[in-house]
Amino acid sequence: MSNLTSLDLTSRGIAELRAAHEDVRRRYQAFAERKLKLNLTRGKPSSKQLDLCNELLSLPGGDYMAGAVDTRNYGELQGLPELRAQLAPIFGVSPDRVILGDNASLALMHDAVVYSMLKGTVDSDKPWSRESRIAFLCPVPGYDRHFSICAQFGIEMIPVPMLDTGPDMAVVEQLVASDPQIKGMWCVPKYSNPCGTVYSHETIERLAKMPAAARDFRLFWDNAYAVHHLTHEHIEITNIDEACARHGHPNRAFIFGSTSKVTFAGAGVGLFAGSKDNVAWYLKQMSMRTIGGDKVNQLRHVRLFNTNGGVAALMDRHREILAPKFEQVLKTFEQHLGDSGVARWTRPKGGYFISLEVLDGCAKRVVQLAKEAGVELTPAGATHPLGKDAQDRFIRIAPSFPELPEVTQAAEGVAVCVLLAATEKLLQSHAG
Amino acid sequence: MSNLTSLDLTSRGIAELRAAHEDVRRRYQAFAERKLKLNLTRGKPSSKQLDLCNELLSLPGGDYMAGAVDTRNYGELQGLPELRAQLAPIFGVSPDRVILGDNASLALMHDAVVYSMLKGTVDSDKPWSRESRIAFLCPVPGYDRHFSICAQFGIEMIPVPMLDTGPDMAVVEQLVASDPQIKGMWCVPKYSNPCGTVYSHETIERLAKMPAAARDFRLFWDNAYAVHHLTHEHIEITNIDEACARHGHPNRAFIFGSTSKVTFAGAGVGLFAGSKDNVAWYLKQMSMRTIGGDKVNQLRHVRLFNTNGGVAALMDRHREILAPKFEQVLKTFEQHLGDSGVARWTRPKGGYFISLEVLDGCAKRVVQLAKEAGVELTPAGATHPLGKDAQDRFIRIAPSFPELPEVTQAAEGVAVCVLLAATEKLLQSHAG
Repeated sequence: MSNLTSLDLTSRGIAELRAAHEDVRRRYQAFAERKLKLNLTRGKPSSKQLDLCNELLSLPGGDYMAGAVDTRNYGELQGLPELRAQLAPIFGVSPDRVILGDNASLALMHDAVVYSMLKGTVDSDKPWSRESRIAFLCPVPGYDRHFSICAQFGIEMIPVPMLDTGPDMAVVEQLVASDPQIKGMWCVPKYSNPCGTVYSHETIERLAKMPAAARDFRLFWDNAYAVHHLTHEHIEITNIDEACARHGHPNRAFIFGSTSKVTFAGAGVGLFAGSKDNVAWYLKQMSMRTIGGDKVNQLRHVRLFNTNGGVAALMDRHREILAPKFEQVLKTFEQHLGDSGVARWTRPKGGYFISLEVLDGCAKRVVQLAKEAGVELTPAGATHPLGKDAQDRFIRIAPSFPELPEVTQAAEGVAVCVLLAATEKLLQSHAG
Repeated sequence: MSNLTSLDLTSRGIAELRAAHEDVRRRYQAFAERKLKLNLTRGKPSSKQLDLCNELLSLPGGDYMAGAVDTRNYGELQGLPELRAQLAPIFGVSPDRVILGDNASLALMHDAVVYSMLKGTVDSDKPWSRESRIAFLCPVPGYDRHFSICAQFGIEMIPVPMLDTGPDMAVVEQLVASDPQIKGMWCVPKYSNPCGTVYSHETIERLAKMPAAARDFRLFWDNAYAVHHLTHEHIEITNIDEACARHGHPNRAFIFGSTSKVTFAGAGVGLFAGSKDNVAWYLKQMSMRTIGGDKVNQLRHVRLFNTNGGVAALMDRHREILAPKFEQVLKTFEQHLGDSGVARWTRPKGGYFISLEVLDGCAKRVVQLAKEAGVELTPAGATHPLGKDAQDRFIRIAPSFPELPEVTQAAEGVAVCVLLAATEKLLQSHAG
């Protein structure tokens, strides 16, 4: 192990830096020569995780009835009551205020934006597409696919800094109170993508309570990681639906979730939840595009949860597979970057990501170096609206998909790339 | 059997009419007193039809791989190549120009309209929502859910009469050539809903060839009944994709289909097909709302078709179940209404519906009488834009779901209601 990391690189003199750079360059070369092919790009479950639910592959078997409902035929727009009852408590609403979608909660978010654009929400004076300008608040770093939906429909994105307690509420409150064109805000309230941040009680209370200049302001509450714990500490967040109702904004939250990272990533069930009025509104729009979702798949999920101790027991088994991968990345980063002064990273208690921060202006270079050495990372900037991280500092690390030995190798490779990009940068600064 | 039907009711004198009316009223009363509960409302497959594909309920079993693709995980936006290859020939395009959706082709049609509204097609100067006015041609009678999508998004619907060869092309050509705000036209080209009409070669050629004032005019080609034959005569229609390309309008047709009435109505696979540019365009929009469809379900379909002689063999078995129900309705109508002069109906060679035409101003009354006697029918007017059949004459009969004895009873009931409404009407005319 090199002793490079025992000192803060940023405080070294030029000669020491040159030596460090040479040393790191050699390590990078050695890593690249192993010609590995590793991928830390997306939050995909691993095969072992998917194996936990292989029972789904031969369910429901001969019995296709769900109560009086023939799951094979048309109908049941809102989804099977049995599955709604199983999932509703996770999202803090009653089963009658849950709608089951197809396999992707992203599609439900997209469609909620589409319906708001073309029809307006229950509290809108007109469709959003008739407004001269529409803006969403986007806590950064955040989820690229949220931002893509805004970009797609010409919705202006206003970045808001993330704190350890969630989005910076002083900024949020000021903006939402003063600008009637701010119609929405993306929120991943628990184990956020990519920081793993959990919104504090105070943050959620303030989001529910704050005055909004737009009467039809909506929190797009993507509770994607509601039960996706990485530790034995099962963190619970404040119920957004209750809080909004209590503060007189019952329709403020559109709640989203799915079983994508509970059962099968590509063949789970997505979910919309919200107030009575929001649910009636969503169902009305949805009834124009479908007669109902795939109830056979819903029934598969009901049966699976019934015979496997439910969602919580299943999530324990996911944790057993996932947690060591996260620990390995954190251990490797600590070992190689711990005292370097050129990187910091999050230590999430749940979710699918670690957010790695490098020296300003180095994120793109790290991703490029990693790619050339055989490690695919999410493109730098993906965590920010329009892919533009002005500081070029955030990298999202997704360790879920590769097996543990690959994760270890990849994390080492990333650490070396961080050091190499940093010494390059610091040498430039000295030269400049 | 009453001899009522041996004479044309419309040519009877008042005394004869009164007698006929009394006789029909008694028959209606007798029917109502049986307190049946029958339903001919929607084109739902029967349990016996669904049973044909019960293999799906335990597929794919242990082997979840489709080539190198783990169907359980994220990805494959366009859908499994194997299933695209199986379905593409039915819709007359190559597999690379097929996109697999979720379980409902209606959703794909809805989304194609949404994308056109909010983004514009590949040939649009601007999104349709920025136009002062958008209109679609709607052949009538037609499919209520098509019309609902237009109503939902404020798209003006211009009815076009259906002839035996398809929509009245003289009307269509004149309108499309002269009005640049006509951006779309709904077409069910084969065994149309509800008339069972098959678009002739000439009709399809003219649709493909006709000049359109709107450069981005689109045929919404809902080939829902492409393989849904009711006779041994497997009618083939002219390939719309080839015809459009040949006439210099390669992007004119958006093609839709599904396996809803091939496998499971609620758990099949929907499909979009079209030109290379249309497919690229659709995929781009779709990539904003999903990472991919349910590939496990796609794999189920691949395996089912592989082991059951493919789609055609399966459709033969559907026909064996469906054809007798249609024959029974036609026989019953012939028996009770054949010479009455107060009704005519279609004799479809495929699809899911019979269109029944009654005396002007009688359709609503027939549906009401039927309901009161225990037979649910699709609401009168549903076959027309905004539910408004100005002549109040069309009723859609859907005999697929009930078992054969119920179909027979229901058809008798409907026939009696038609006679009762007609004698009421004719007596009113005499009085007036």
